[in-house]
Amino acid sequence: MLLTGGTGGAKLVLGFHEEAAPEDLVVVCNTADDSVVHGLHVSPDVDTIVYTLAGLIDPAKGWGIQGDTFTVLDQLRRLGNETWFRLGDRDIATHLTRTRLLAEGQPLSRVTAALCAEFGVRSTVLPMSDQRVETRLSTSEGELSFQEYFVKARWQPEVLSLRYLGSEDCRASPGLLDAIREAAMVVVCPSNPVTSIAPILAVPGVREALRETSARVAAVSPMVQGRSFSGPAHRLMATLGVEASSAGLASAYHDFVDVLVIDQGDRKLRPAIERLGVGVRVASIRMDTLDDKKRLARELLRLVD
Amino acid sequence: MLLTGGTGGAKLVLGFHEEAAPEDLVVVCNTADDSVVHGLHVSPDVDTIVYTLAGLIDPAKGWGIQGDTFTVLDQLRRLGNETWFRLGDRDIATHLTRTRLLAEGQPLSRVTAALCAEFGVRSTVLPMSDQRVETRLSTSEGELSFQEYFVKARWQPEVLSLRYLGSEDCRASPGLLDAIREAAMVVVCPSNPVTSIAPILAVPGVREALRETSARVAAVSPMVQGRSFSGPAHRLMATLGVEASSAGLASAYHDFVDVLVIDQGDRKLRPAIERLGVGVRVASIRMDTLDDKKRLARELLRLVD
Repeated sequence: MLLTGGTGGAKLVLGFHEEAAPEDLVVVCNTADDSVVHGLHVSPDVDTIVYTLAGLIDPAKGWGIQGDTFTVLDQLRRLGNETWFRLGDRDIATHLTRTRLLAEGQPLSRVTAALCAEFGVRSTVLPMSDQRVETRLSTSEGELSFQEYFVKARWQPEVLSLRYLGSEDCRASPGLLDAIREAAMVVVCPSNPVTSIAPILAVPGVREALRETSARVAAVSPMVQGRSFSGPAHRLMATLGVEASSAGLASAYHDFVDVLVIDQGDRKLRPAIERLGVGVRVASIRMDTLDDKKRLARELLRLVD
Repeated sequence: MLLTGGTGGAKLVLGFHEEAAPEDLVVVCNTADDSVVHGLHVSPDVDTIVYTLAGLIDPAKGWGIQGDTFTVLDQLRRLGNETWFRLGDRDIATHLTRTRLLAEGQPLSRVTAALCAEFGVRSTVLPMSDQRVETRLSTSEGELSFQEYFVKARWQPEVLSLRYLGSEDCRASPGLLDAIREAAMVVVCPSNPVTSIAPILAVPGVREALRETSARVAAVSPMVQGRSFSGPAHRLMATLGVEASSAGLASAYHDFVDVLVIDQGDRKLRPAIERLGVGVRVASIRMDTLDDKKRLARELLRLVD
């Protein structure tokens, strides 16, 4: 089982998809970045994972469908709509289908399963919750949604604090807590710990299930030497009350993670991490090529054997 | 002022647009064919008129935007959706914008005005009502919506009766009744009298305003020798309790129409129509070319002078 956000985590998800039996994979996705755009329910992390597993992801952008066109979006712009959130034409078909099924009363987890079936995805993709949870960032430019902060403002505003609106009252997706308890292995992907992993951990019961599971729980650091491989993770870690480093990550995850996989460049952090009761595996965690992704997945699979 | 449905009526609307000052034109559109497709509010007749006035209409099909692509629809089909209702990519941008504005609480008439402004349309396009009215056809294959009957079943089922669901409780769009009373001229376009014009006439107050207006009210027959130029109008006229001919049309409209324009091929119907108190103008009413459309508009404009 993998817990993941979008782009960064998707690289490791793809590695596991290539190295393990796809039908055995359960991928739990953050949904706190979900947005309603032009009236459409967009689940960016779910879509990135589904498109990745379907072999459709645009590898250059890390989101959307490869070769997609933007005819609808261009026309929406001409009609006076804001179009900073980029939606391709084929991507819009996904959102239209999801929005219609949700409006018909189906929960997001079932809608996601239906979309996976249509895309020929054999792994299980599980949104963290069927209820709406929304990351809200209090910033130097006022309160922003994640997409406003990340896409529209290009993560430039200073973030003072953030909250996961609705997380206290939401429920884990059907089967999610049992799946954690019964997993052979749990991997926390190298996604943004603040905006991708923390919302999953904030779903009632998830953190407890991770503490209680007999499965090995590993996490892969999304950063080296205090800087994330991509995106603003390092800038946001202060909001978790931890330092912006793999050691800070270990202190945020120490109650449920058995092993943290860190980059060679962070190996001097090993003693500090081990003092938190978290095991350390030093590996090459940068994933540029498919080989990198597969190699890291194999490294993690070896932790269970 | 013109009362119209989609394709057939749009030809005459275009003729008036070319022959009169566009900003003086008020085009009242049937909305009883409106449908929710993939969660999108589609107003087929409004869109056909707006695209026609914007110079964007696909002249071969008579609906949609010329040169539009169908990337979203093709993908919707791959994702298991029914796609017999054809929506182009640029067309979908219209429906996304409309659906969002409606969801934000704006009435259809204001949404239509906003779309007209974005498309550079200088005439006034007025949906008949801001409330939902829906043509329901009781047929040999069960009850169908207009789109199910017309597009999906290609108007093959036998129609036993039909009703305009919601019309008794709807209100005419803001300004519509006054616009009828104050018009210099009213033209009932050669649209389907049963599924396009009758729903407009069923909006409370419209028929009375047409009877009361001091404007000349003319109608153009959509048929010759008992057959409509296109579509199933002649098959449906029995549901109005009249015969399928321009004379039947005159008896359906006689209480508010001053002049009925009929084709040369129907000129033997002149006495029967005049006996109903309806004046007759014989003209060439087939509109294949832009010149045909402009000539017929000029013919009608001469009726007022």
